[in-house]
Amino acid sequence: MEKLSYVGKSLPRKDALIKVTGAAQYADDREFAGLLHAAAVRSPRPRIKILSISDTAARRVPGYVTLVTYKDIKGVNKWPVVLQDYPFLPEKEARFAGETVALVVAGTARAARKAAALVEVKYKELPFLEDPLKALEKGALKIYGKDNIFSSFVIKRGSVDEAFKKAAFTVEGEFSTNYQVHAYLETQGAIALPEAGGGMTVHSTTQCPFYVLDAVAAALGIPYHKVKILQTVTGGGFGGKEDVPALVASHAALCAAKTGRPVKLIYGRKEDFQSMSKRHPGWARVAYAADKNGKLTACRVKYVLDGGAYSTLSPIVLWRGTVHAAGPYKIANVDIKTYAAATNKVPCGAFRGFGQPQVCFAQESLIDELAEKVGMDPVQFRLRNILEPGDKTVTGQKLNSSCGLKEIIQTVRKRSGWDKKIGDRESGIGNQGDIVTGIGFSVTYYGVGLGAKGRYLDRAGALVNIYKDSSVGVNVGNTEMGQGALTVLAQIAAETLNAPYESVRVEEVDSSKVPDSGPTVASRTTLMSGNAIIEAATPIRERIFKTACDMLISMGAGASQKMTAHGGLFYMGGKTVDFKRVVAECWFRRHKMSEQGWYAAPRTTFKMEDGQGDAYVIYSYSADAAEVEVDLKTGVARVKKIWAAYDVGKIVNPRLAVAQAQGGLLQGMSWALYENLVYKNGIMVNPNFTDYVMATTADKPEYDITFIEKPYAEGPYKAKGMGEVPLIGVAPAVANAIKNACGARVNSVPLLPEKIWNELKKI
Amino acid sequence: MEKLSYVGKSLPRKDALIKVTGAAQYADDREFAGLLHAAAVRSPRPRIKILSISDTAARRVPGYVTLVTYKDIKGVNKWPVVLQDYPFLPEKEARFAGETVALVVAGTARAARKAAALVEVKYKELPFLEDPLKALEKGALKIYGKDNIFSSFVIKRGSVDEAFKKAAFTVEGEFSTNYQVHAYLETQGAIALPEAGGGMTVHSTTQCPFYVLDAVAAALGIPYHKVKILQTVTGGGFGGKEDVPALVASHAALCAAKTGRPVKLIYGRKEDFQSMSKRHPGWARVAYAADKNGKLTACRVKYVLDGGAYSTLSPIVLWRGTVHAAGPYKIANVDIKTYAAATNKVPCGAFRGFGQPQVCFAQESLIDELAEKVGMDPVQFRLRNILEPGDKTVTGQKLNSSCGLKEIIQTVRKRSGWDKKIGDRESGIGNQGDIVTGIGFSVTYYGVGLGAKGRYLDRAGALVNIYKDSSVGVNVGNTEMGQGALTVLAQIAAETLNAPYESVRVEEVDSSKVPDSGPTVASRTTLMSGNAIIEAATPIRERIFKTACDMLISMGAGASQKMTAHGGLFYMGGKTVDFKRVVAECWFRRHKMSEQGWYAAPRTTFKMEDGQGDAYVIYSYSADAAEVEVDLKTGVARVKKIWAAYDVGKIVNPRLAVAQAQGGLLQGMSWALYENLVYKNGIMVNPNFTDYVMATTADKPEYDITFIEKPYAEGPYKAKGMGEVPLIGVAPAVANAIKNACGARVNSVPLLPEKIWNELKKI
Repeated sequence: MEKLSYVGKSLPRKDALIKVTGAAQYADDREFAGLLHAAAVRSPRPRIKILSISDTAARRVPGYVTLVTYKDIKGVNKWPVVLQDYPFLPEKEARFAGETVALVVAGTARAARKAAALVEVKYKELPFLEDPLKALEKGALKIYGKDNIFSSFVIKRGSVDEAFKKAAFTVEGEFSTNYQVHAYLETQGAIALPEAGGGMTVHSTTQCPFYVLDAVAAALGIPYHKVKILQTVTGGGFGGKEDVPALVASHAALCAAKTGRPVKLIYGRKEDFQSMSKRHPGWARVAYAADKNGKLTACRVKYVLDGGAYSTLSPIVLWRGTVHAAGPYKIANVDIKTYAAATNKVPCGAFRGFGQPQVCFAQESLIDELAEKVGMDPVQFRLRNILEPGDKTVTGQKLNSSCGLKEIIQTVRKRSGWDKKIGDRESGIGNQGDIVTGIGFSVTYYGVGLGAKGRYLDRAGALVNIYKDSSVGVNVGNTEMGQGALTVLAQIAAETLNAPYESVRVEEVDSSKVPDSGPTVASRTTLMSGNAIIEAATPIRERIFKTACDMLISMGAGASQKMTAHGGLFYMGGKTVDFKRVVAECWFRRHKMSEQGWYAAPRTTFKMEDGQGDAYVIYSYSADAAEVEVDLKTGVARVKKIWAAYDVGKIVNPRLAVAQAQGGLLQGMSWALYENLVYKNGIMVNPNFTDYVMATTADKPEYDITFIEKPYAEGPYKAKGMGEVPLIGVAPAVANAIKNACGARVNSVPLLPEKIWNELKKI
Repeated sequence: MEKLSYVGKSLPRKDALIKVTGAAQYADDREFAGLLHAAAVRSPRPRIKILSISDTAARRVPGYVTLVTYKDIKGVNKWPVVLQDYPFLPEKEARFAGETVALVVAGTARAARKAAALVEVKYKELPFLEDPLKALEKGALKIYGKDNIFSSFVIKRGSVDEAFKKAAFTVEGEFSTNYQVHAYLETQGAIALPEAGGGMTVHSTTQCPFYVLDAVAAALGIPYHKVKILQTVTGGGFGGKEDVPALVASHAALCAAKTGRPVKLIYGRKEDFQSMSKRHPGWARVAYAADKNGKLTACRVKYVLDGGAYSTLSPIVLWRGTVHAAGPYKIANVDIKTYAAATNKVPCGAFRGFGQPQVCFAQESLIDELAEKVGMDPVQFRLRNILEPGDKTVTGQKLNSSCGLKEIIQTVRKRSGWDKKIGDRESGIGNQGDIVTGIGFSVTYYGVGLGAKGRYLDRAGALVNIYKDSSVGVNVGNTEMGQGALTVLAQIAAETLNAPYESVRVEEVDSSKVPDSGPTVASRTTLMSGNAIIEAATPIRERIFKTACDMLISMGAGASQKMTAHGGLFYMGGKTVDFKRVVAECWFRRHKMSEQGWYAAPRTTFKMEDGQGDAYVIYSYSADAAEVEVDLKTGVARVKKIWAAYDVGKIVNPRLAVAQAQGGLLQGMSWALYENLVYKNGIMVNPNFTDYVMATTADKPEYDITFIEKPYAEGPYKAKGMGEVPLIGVAPAVANAIKNACGARVNSVPLLPEKIWNELKKI
C-alpha cells in the first residue's frame, strides 16, 4: 500500500468548530415558521386499561390546538421494529408508567405541556410484572405471549455435562447488573413538517434515520419516497438514539399530519428517563470448568434480560449477548441459554455494548474466580485460554489473522506493571491505612457490525459528489452522534480520492440521498460507511488519476514515469499538479464526478437452532487492567487508573480513537460503580440527574490507552470498529480489582459502597 | 423494442394536484422562522457614476436592519456567467435604469421596500447608448470594450459573392424584432438561509440551480459543498429563469450572510420588467440567391442582437441564432456575420427559441418573397430546398435519419388545405368585406441541447433510489418549470425500471444530490436528464429483472421460459410477480438499489473560426401554417388557426407535448402581434401588464397539432426535444399570412396594426 496521507492521522474534527462555538443546530434549536409544539400525555401507572381520553379541560389552555390519539393514525398502528408489538399510540392498554398514550398540540411548548397535564385519561389499573426472573416462572402473570418471553437463543457445542463431570476445577456464580441511562446531553426530539402533496419531512436527533423513515411512513401510511428524514446535529446517542427516536418522530409526524403544520416534540429530561430505552438490567448464572492445567473445558450460561414492556430491540441485544456470553476463549463444550423477558417497565434497548457488558461482567468476574481456584495468575490464566488466529469461537467460527487479543493482553500486562502489582495482592497494592488498592483484569471480544441476526440490514450506501471547484460532498446513511463519524469518513474519502482533507465535507444524513444503510450501531459505521465511500469514490478516483496522468504528461513528464499521489498532489517525472486543477480538467472533460456507493457485509452462516456458525464478519478485542482503591471504612471504591489496549484494526484517527476509548472507559466505570436507576412498584423513582448518580470528569481515572492494529483485509484501510469495545470489560476489571484490593467479591453492578461493605463484613 | 408501458402515453401530470389545489409552494410561499426581507435599491438612470449610497433616511423606517452594498461581498464581485462583466453589485458605475445598486434588509417586505426607496444614491449621469446598430458604428460612445461588441460569430461556406452574381433570383431585406417579456406568473425570488459552519441554503425559483450554485458560492466566497440550492416549485420560466435567478439568489445570500438570518427577496412585477432578462431585440439584413429552378444557392446574413448593459447570455443566444440563421435549407454558399452589441438597457438573455425567432422571422419572411419572385408556391419552394436525411446544414453537418422536415411540411400542407387556400391568394382567402384572410407558412429547425458553444455544460446527472416499500425517488439536475419535466422523467424512470408509474416520484432539484447537470434550457431536459435516468436505472433494472426471474422460477415457471415485463408486472411461464414483491426481495438480498447516473452529450466538431462542423448533436423540426385575418380599415391582424407539425423524435407524453406546442404557438403569436416593450431615453416606458399587451386565452387561435416521430437513436426512448421549437416559426408564418391576406409585408415584429396599415397605404 502507498503511504497514507490522511488515514492514520489525528486530523481535526470536522464538527469541532460548530460545536464549540454553539453554532451547531440541535433539534430544539431548529425553528420553523408556523411551528406548533407537541407534548405527550403519559400513563401514570405500570399497566392500565384505557377507558377514555378527554381534552375537555385541556381545551381551556390558551394556544391549545388538538389532541392526537391512536384514532388519528392513518397507517398501521404498529411501530415497525423487530417484533412489532409496540403500537405508535396504545388503543386499549398501556404497559408501563410513562408510556405515551396521547399527544397534545399547542402553540407553544409550555402550553402543550400544560394542556397535556390537563388531559384526563380514565383508566383501570391492571396487575403488572416487575421482576424478569419472576416473569419467567411458571404460573406468572402473562403480559406477553404465553410465556412472557420476547426472545430466546441457544448456543450448543460439545457435551457440557460430561465436561463438568470430568473437570478438575469448576466455578459457578450468579451475577446481576442494573439499568444504565444513556444520559445523552440532548434529549429526544423531532420536528415534522408537512409537505405539499402529502409528504412529510422530519428533522430528528437520531442514530438511525432509516428506522425513523420506516416508522414515519408506517404511521402516516404514505410511501417512503414522500418521507424525508434529516438527521439534526445529534447530542449523543450511545444506543439511546437507535430505536426510540423513530417513535418520537412518528408522534411528531402524526401531530403534523393532523394539524397540517410543522410540529416540534422535544422531550424533557424526566420523561426521557421514564419512557426512552435503557441498558437492560441483566441476570446471569455462569459456570466454567477447567482441566488440571487450567485449560477451560466447558461453559454453561443462563442469561436473562429485562426487556420491559415492549420488545423493541431486545431480541437483537439478547442475541449479541448470547454469542459473546462465554468470553473470548477456546472452549469445546458450551451450553448457553438466554431469554429476554417482558415486564411492565420501560422498554430496554440498545446501549453501547448491546447486551454484552451484563454477561461479560459475570463471565470475567468468574474467570478470575476460576484462576484463583486453579492457582494461576488471572492474566496467565487468560493467556492460556484466549482465542488466537486460527482458533474457533464457541459458535465454531474460525478466526482469521485480524485477532490481536494475545498482544493486547501482553501490552496491558506490561504497561500496567501487572506482574509486580499482582504480586502484592495479598495485602492489596499501595495499602495506605484504611484505603487499600488492588488491580483487576478483563478481556473481551466484540463482533463488529450486525452479524447474522441483523444481516439483512448490514449494508450501507454513500453518495460522493465532487463539485466543479473541487470541493467534495459526501453523504452516508450512518450518523455522527459525537463519536467522530464525519471526521473519520472524511479522512477515508480524502484518502481514496487524494483530495485535500479540508475539501471534504460529510453531511448529516438525508434519507433521500442514500439508500437504507442500516442503523448507526454495532461499531459498524467506519467499516460499513467507510467501505461504501470507497466503493463510490473508486471510479471517480480512477477518472481523476487518469486525468492527472494525462495532465502531467502534457506538462512534460515522461509517459514512462510512474505517477504518485499524496496529500492532494499528483507527481510524475518532476512535475506536479494539484487536486483542484485535476478536478477542473475532469469537469471540462465532462467526466462523471458523482457516484453512489454500496457495501454489503459478507454473509454469515450462524444457525439459530444450535448457535453454531459464523456469527459476525470480524471481531475487535480489548484488554483492561483497572487499579482501584477501596475505603475499608465506607466501602467506597474509586478507579485510579485504567490501562487498556485494543485491537480494532487500523486506527483511522488516533486522537478520536483515544477519545472513544476514554469515553467508553468512563461510561463503563460509571455503570460499574455509580449508576443505579430504581423502580418501586412499577414506578421509576429517580428519573433525574439529581438522584441518578453518574461519573463526571471529576471521577475520571487516569488512562493508559494503546492500540494494536491488526489489519482487517475487508475493512476500509484495514479498519474494524471500536465504538463499543472500550466499555464492555470495565465493570469486571473493576470488580476484580476490588476483590484484589480488599477481598470482597461483589456480583452485582453497580458496585455500590454498601454492597462492598456487605461483602467485607462477610470476610 | 418491447411494447412500452408508460412512454408514449398521456399519463397525468405529477404536479397537477398540488398546482390546482394551491398546495404548491412557490418561493414566496415558503416561510421561515426569523425571516428578514430584502428589497433592491435601483439605478434611476440609464448610466450613472455612483458617488455615494446613504441609508441615513432609511434607518428611520421601523424594522430596518441593514444596507448591503458591494463592500459586503466576501467573494469576487463578478457574477460567473460567460463573460463575467456583470458585478453582483456595482462599485462605481451602474449601466442601466433598474440595475440593483444596493439592497436593504428589514423585518418585513413592506419595510424593506419603503427603506429601499429612502436610500439616497448620489450619482452623476453619464452619456449612454440606446441603439445597438449605433453602438456598432465607428466613433460611437464606448460602453463595452473597444467596440461595444459582447460577441461575434461567423459562418463561412462556399463563395457567396460569386453565387449572388450568378443567381437567377435574389432577395434582400431588413427585419427587426422587439423585446419579449417572459411574463412568468411567478416573479423572480429567492430565500437564503445561513447554515451552521458558514454554509448557505438557497431556495430559488429557477430553471438553473447550478447557475445559482455557481453564483452564490462566488459571491460568498465559500466552497460549493457548503452551498445547497433547492429549486422551489417554479411558476414559469421560458428562459427568464435561466441566468438571472442566480443574481437574485446571490443578492439574497449576501443579505443573509451579512445579517446571519434567513432573507427573502421577492421581486415586484415592475422591477422584474425593468431589470430581469428579456428576449433580445434583433435586427437582421438577410439576402438569398436562387437559380432559375428555384434552388437556393446562397445566403448572406448580418444579424445584430441588442445585448443590453451586460453580456450575460448574449454570446450563447447569438451563437444559436448564427447557426440557424440561414434556415433549414441546403445552401452551398453562406456568409453569416452576427453581433451582440452593448447598450445601456436591460441585459437580454434566454427566451424560448434563444436567438432563433428573431432571425427566423427575417429569413422565413424573405423565403416567401423569394418564392414569389421565382414564381413558386412557398411550400413547393421550401420542399425543393429543405434539409433531408443525408443532407448537410450550412455548417457542413450531415443530418442522420432523424430528420422529418419533409413529412411535417407535407402534413401541414395537407391538414391546412394549403393548396386550395393558397390558390385564392390573389384576393386573400375567405374575403369578407373589410376583413381579409390569408395563409402563411414557415419551417424551422432547432439544434437540441447546448451544442458546440455550450458543450462543456452538456451533461446531466440523475439519482435513482428505490426504497424498501418499492417507491422510487428520482432526482435530476434539470427543473420542472411548468413544462412537464417531472412527469416525462417519471415516465422514463418507470419504463426503464418496469415500476408502476404511480410509484415514481421525481423531486425538484437539490444541488447536493446530483452533479451539475447544466441549465434547463435548449429543449434538453428530456434528452439529457432522461438519458441520465436511464443510465442510473439500468443497473438497478438488471438486478430487479434478474431477481424477478429467480422468483418466477422458484414459483414454478420453467427456467427455459422467456420473462416479459410490462406495467409493473413480470411474467414467465404462466406465473406473475409484481414490482413491489421483487423490490422487497432485492432488498432482502441486499442489492444496491440506488445509483447515480450520468449522461454527456456526444462531442461536436463546430469550429468558431469559420462556423463549420457539427453544431448540435441532433435537430428537431417544425412546420407551421397560420391562417390570419386582417381588418383593412384598422390594420388589426388576428390569427384564426395554426396548423403545426413537429418532428421532435419520440413523444413521451402526447398530452403534454400538445400542451407544449399550444403554449409555444400562443407565446409566438403574442410576440408576433402584440408584445411591445418601449424604451424612451434609456428608460423603460411600460413595465407592467396594463401597458405591455400580451395575447391571452381570449386571443387563442384554433390549433391543429401533429407529431411525426422520427426516432433519435441516442435519445431516451428515441426522444429529441421540443420545448422551444413551437414558438420559433410563428411570427414569419403570421407575417406571411398577412402578406397573403392583404399584400402588406411588415418586416418588424410586433406586427402592429399601425405597421400593417402603413404598408397597406403603400400598396
